[in-house]
Amino acid sequence: MKKPRLMTPGPAPVPEDVLLEMARPVIHHRSAEAKQVITACVAGLKEVFQTQNDVLILTSSGTGAMEAAVVNVVPRGRKAIVLNAGWFAQRWLKICQAFGIEAISVDFEWGQPVDPARVENALAQHPDAVAVYGTLSETSTGTGHPVEAIGRIVARTDAVLAIDGISGIGAMECRTDAWGIDLLAVGSQKALMLPPGLAFLAVSPKAWAKIDACDAPAFYFNLKAARKKMAEFDTPFTPAHTLLLGLKVALDRIRAEGIEAVWERHRRMSEACQAGIQALGLELFSARPAEGLTAFRVPEGLKDSDIRGRLAERFGITTIGGQDKLKGQIVRVGHMGYFDELDVVAGLAALELVLAELGHEVEPGRAVTAAQQVLMGQHAALSETR
Amino acid sequence: MKKPRLMTPGPAPVPEDVLLEMARPVIHHRSAEAKQVITACVAGLKEVFQTQNDVLILTSSGTGAMEAAVVNVVPRGRKAIVLNAGWFAQRWLKICQAFGIEAISVDFEWGQPVDPARVENALAQHPDAVAVYGTLSETSTGTGHPVEAIGRIVARTDAVLAIDGISGIGAMECRTDAWGIDLLAVGSQKALMLPPGLAFLAVSPKAWAKIDACDAPAFYFNLKAARKKMAEFDTPFTPAHTLLLGLKVALDRIRAEGIEAVWERHRRMSEACQAGIQALGLELFSARPAEGLTAFRVPEGLKDSDIRGRLAERFGITTIGGQDKLKGQIVRVGHMGYFDELDVVAGLAALELVLAELGHEVEPGRAVTAAQQVLMGQHAALSETR
Repeated sequence: MKKPRLMTPGPAPVPEDVLLEMARPVIHHRSAEAKQVITACVAGLKEVFQTQNDVLILTSSGTGAMEAAVVNVVPRGRKAIVLNAGWFAQRWLKICQAFGIEAISVDFEWGQPVDPARVENALAQHPDAVAVYGTLSETSTGTGHPVEAIGRIVARTDAVLAIDGISGIGAMECRTDAWGIDLLAVGSQKALMLPPGLAFLAVSPKAWAKIDACDAPAFYFNLKAARKKMAEFDTPFTPAHTLLLGLKVALDRIRAEGIEAVWERHRRMSEACQAGIQALGLELFSARPAEGLTAFRVPEGLKDSDIRGRLAERFGITTIGGQDKLKGQIVRVGHMGYFDELDVVAGLAALELVLAELGHEVEPGRAVTAAQQVLMGQHAALSETR
Repeated sequence: MKKPRLMTPGPAPVPEDVLLEMARPVIHHRSAEAKQVITACVAGLKEVFQTQNDVLILTSSGTGAMEAAVVNVVPRGRKAIVLNAGWFAQRWLKICQAFGIEAISVDFEWGQPVDPARVENALAQHPDAVAVYGTLSETSTGTGHPVEAIGRIVARTDAVLAIDGISGIGAMECRTDAWGIDLLAVGSQKALMLPPGLAFLAVSPKAWAKIDACDAPAFYFNLKAARKKMAEFDTPFTPAHTLLLGLKVALDRIRAEGIEAVWERHRRMSEACQAGIQALGLELFSARPAEGLTAFRVPEGLKDSDIRGRLAERFGITTIGGQDKLKGQIVRVGHMGYFDELDVVAGLAALELVLAELGHEVEPGRAVTAAQQVLMGQHAALSETR
């Protein structure tokens, strides 16, 4: 028997009640029921994103929300700053280039967090930049970026801050309004506990002013049209409304747990995972790990495909390797959304067993013990401070 | 008890086995299994579309495929001809306008089919038109357009023919290659028996030549990038892959029935529905009815909302009214995809009962009898000719 265990940084596991909600007989997308579902989803998303700003629903991958956050905001020929610290940050660059926007790339080593001082310098050098594009959790390296500090800097300028929150939102603290995020792009298939197919975009008044001033070459992703329809809890085009039914159930789960508790759970899972991996003598890849996934370097003498292949073969565990220049160099393990501490312990147990089989020197129980220690310590710390 | 009966021209009912397939534990979208599913879906879609051309999978509503068929094909400032005979045909115009393409609108009265002679004239008058945009089944009026004849005319020119097949494909005959359709845009939520969230685009070599020559302002809907990935049965961005799992099951159903038999079933359902509606003394709206839906005029003295409201209230039937200038004037009844002759008879029975309650003069059994007569006659005719 191999139980399927999806341990990738998206798609992430979807709760059974969410899956079954989407298996109900299909309703019409312009019905009163559909409107109620959209209303509830928008309210729930605002809570998860910690925003009072407009939240728009798009039927696309998260990349669609990223494109919308570029093409509606920065006019052709104008300038944008991209905080380029990984494969997905590079996507901001590519989108700008596709639409004739001058993209200033501020490059950081993959695995290193963005340095806010360099954002400040870039803005001083390019005061005509319309927007700064960054990332909350860089999925390609498993790095969390200091968005709060970046937001404080951008807020002092005329530029807007757009953040790719696709693998971050719901998996790590993000306070859209308090941190000054003007455009927050989110996908459905990560910590929001849904399959892929929906994207979300939170838009601040500062961003709307840019959008209103921009004659965007956009139709499907036209945000002015989306705002008009979303004001009536409707969408410009047929939405993936069975996913919206599921989203409502998933958001009910998040609200019942409380968004702060959800962040705390991910922090615990993340620290336990890191401790377990380090206890196996493996090296974490990121200097500032994200909390929805953990990336570690493939140890000398082993291949990533051996580790990942055996995890899949023996235990039905799906993990993912490195992208682009990290191909073969790292393994990425997701622990986001419908995931608890015991899933992390199980994943570490499998990793221990598989590494031992592959001839890597492993003391039985090291990884799971290290994780348990973190989980116990964390729990004690929590009960003191709350 | 009210059984839910979705009788709208999309979203259309989804078979139970398709719904349950999508409720399986989520797999990874880059796994070997996902690749097999994409391979099978592409093969199935080619059979349904009757094409050997490339078929691209997009995660969006059908409108996304329409946008892709415009923005990748016609360069900014160049010209396109739009066969404008309804609300959804107008969308082609709006997309062209959003991207700075000069759209020549060839207007037809709503409910009337496109006249191929006028297409020929327009092409003669505008030999510099890069593309002709038309519709197989105009959902707003319930009209089927003579795409075969239009295709013959466009094929003789340098222009490509793009067809919105969103509510037509799978519900009425469409032979993409034989009819000379260079770009066929399709949505998942109609006769393909899926929820909304996926769009498909078949692209001919003639269309690829235009696309290769066009420096498109496109990223998410960039067809060159999609072609590259689809050659490996992959997608440029995370696809709505649970819908793809469902699509495979839905396509297996269509292939088991046979696409010709599927068309024939829709033809029978359409004719039975038309006969039943006329037997009630109601007037069909379209001069050339589509086969996936039937539109009838609201009779004197009644309101569309009364008819539709009572159908919903008494029988759980969802129908839809008119759009834009047809608001309040017509009722549209869908019969596409996971729909059989008995569903049509049931729908007509409900319409009879509801009209009688609303004081419309109705002879009990007229509509259902007329439908039965068609169904019997049709069966006899079929056995003669085959």
